[in-house]
Amino acid sequence: MSSISNESPISLYLQIKNIITQQIKEGVLSAGNKIPSERELCEQYNVSRITVRQSLNELEKEGLVNKIHGKGTFVAQPKVEQPLVTVTSFQNTLLSKGLKPKTKFIKYVVLPNSYKISNILSIPLSEKIVELTLIGLDDETPMVVYNSYFAYDLGVRMQELAEQASAENRPFSTFDLYERIPELTLGTISQTFEASIADASIAKLLSVKKNTPILIVESIIYTNENLPVEYKTAIYRGDKYKFSMVRKI
Amino acid sequence: MSSISNESPISLYLQIKNIITQQIKEGVLSAGNKIPSERELCEQYNVSRITVRQSLNELEKEGLVNKIHGKGTFVAQPKVEQPLVTVTSFQNTLLSKGLKPKTKFIKYVVLPNSYKISNILSIPLSEKIVELTLIGLDDETPMVVYNSYFAYDLGVRMQELAEQASAENRPFSTFDLYERIPELTLGTISQTFEASIADASIAKLLSVKKNTPILIVESIIYTNENLPVEYKTAIYRGDKYKFSMVRKI
Repeated sequence: MSSISNESPISLYLQIKNIITQQIKEGVLSAGNKIPSERELCEQYNVSRITVRQSLNELEKEGLVNKIHGKGTFVAQPKVEQPLVTVTSFQNTLLSKGLKPKTKFIKYVVLPNSYKISNILSIPLSEKIVELTLIGLDDETPMVVYNSYFAYDLGVRMQELAEQASAENRPFSTFDLYERIPELTLGTISQTFEASIADASIAKLLSVKKNTPILIVESIIYTNENLPVEYKTAIYRGDKYKFSMVRKI
Repeated sequence: MSSISNESPISLYLQIKNIITQQIKEGVLSAGNKIPSERELCEQYNVSRITVRQSLNELEKEGLVNKIHGKGTFVAQPKVEQPLVTVTSFQNTLLSKGLKPKTKFIKYVVLPNSYKISNILSIPLSEKIVELTLIGLDDETPMVVYNSYFAYDLGVRMQELAEQASAENRPFSTFDLYERIPELTLGTISQTFEASIADASIAKLLSVKKNTPILIVESIIYTNENLPVEYKTAIYRGDKYKFSMVRKI
């Protein structure tokens, strides 16, 4: 068993924090496991409550554990990490982490155009557009809300393909639907990433509390002839998702 | 002057929203400008208060305007957008937007190693490490807090170079300091991007309220021989910063 020492140059709270971190990283403690109570840790390491509390506070700050009021401290679920080097679909990202991707088809609406969408998709203001809303889940837990906007004809086609995928119980994002439109070849995707907090309507869709952190990814998808075909806002739960990339300097 | 029509298929609130969006995008209204009051808009377009309020609410939701209680509605400052394709320094990103980059050297601390840093930087747990904290500002407004961790010797060197840059009033990030260490050639950077909210200490450093959205970018910087030299956490104000990239599909 790991032990701590009063004679180490490393302070006691940090020694305890390091032991628990190591147990989590090495899988001795895994996601959802309850870690010993403050009282148990005090007895185990023969230290004060203040010391133990400092260790647990720092572990919580680093996102390794969650304190649940009245229940104890639990090892946190690590965030799903999606690499940005290649475009990876929602379901492949989740499958590669051993999770259960599902897609819920929320709504399909025909809308008047707005100045913003008209500009992005180069569609005259007078033409109608289509909004498609999907939710990506891990089993029953919502992870991301997708709002996609299309020109009317493509939007109607997308809605049909989305209905079909839903009926066949396939997890999907709009990316997968393009594969079923052979006359359309995608070329590039232009994206922005920003942090925000959930308003009431987003909080409801993601099953989180209002003001929970969210990661907003706006994408414009272009064909191989550089024509914009889709404007998409993906809103990820900040506590469930992060993006990663490796670059040359 | 733009006018709206009751006979258009586009609803009145959306027509007004589109006119104001267009005025912002085309620079007729620019950041910080006050837009007409609800009452003035009602008179100008001959519509109800409810219609005007819906237009303004949607503009606020899209981040184009900010309502300031008791003062009116103002055109929002657009976020600084940093491209991710190449590694761009903080100061070049800000300079390219016409802003005034500054760097504040907050602190230098020698710390006992932690399990996390020991693992990331491959430094034995028994050795001390160095933490360097910088703040990147636009003139007097904090935009980002950088916390960098180094092995002891490199950390001491970095601190000297940071002191020197501060004394010479040069804006800098740790990236620029490497240029003054000729025996060290950087190779790659591995990064993750996630959304969170500011705790009290981060809120203080960034001059924002607690629970304001933040974007956390964790970076590990490697030499051209693939040795990790720096672990850095950059915490950007969510209301000031976004990242962008374009990729092939």
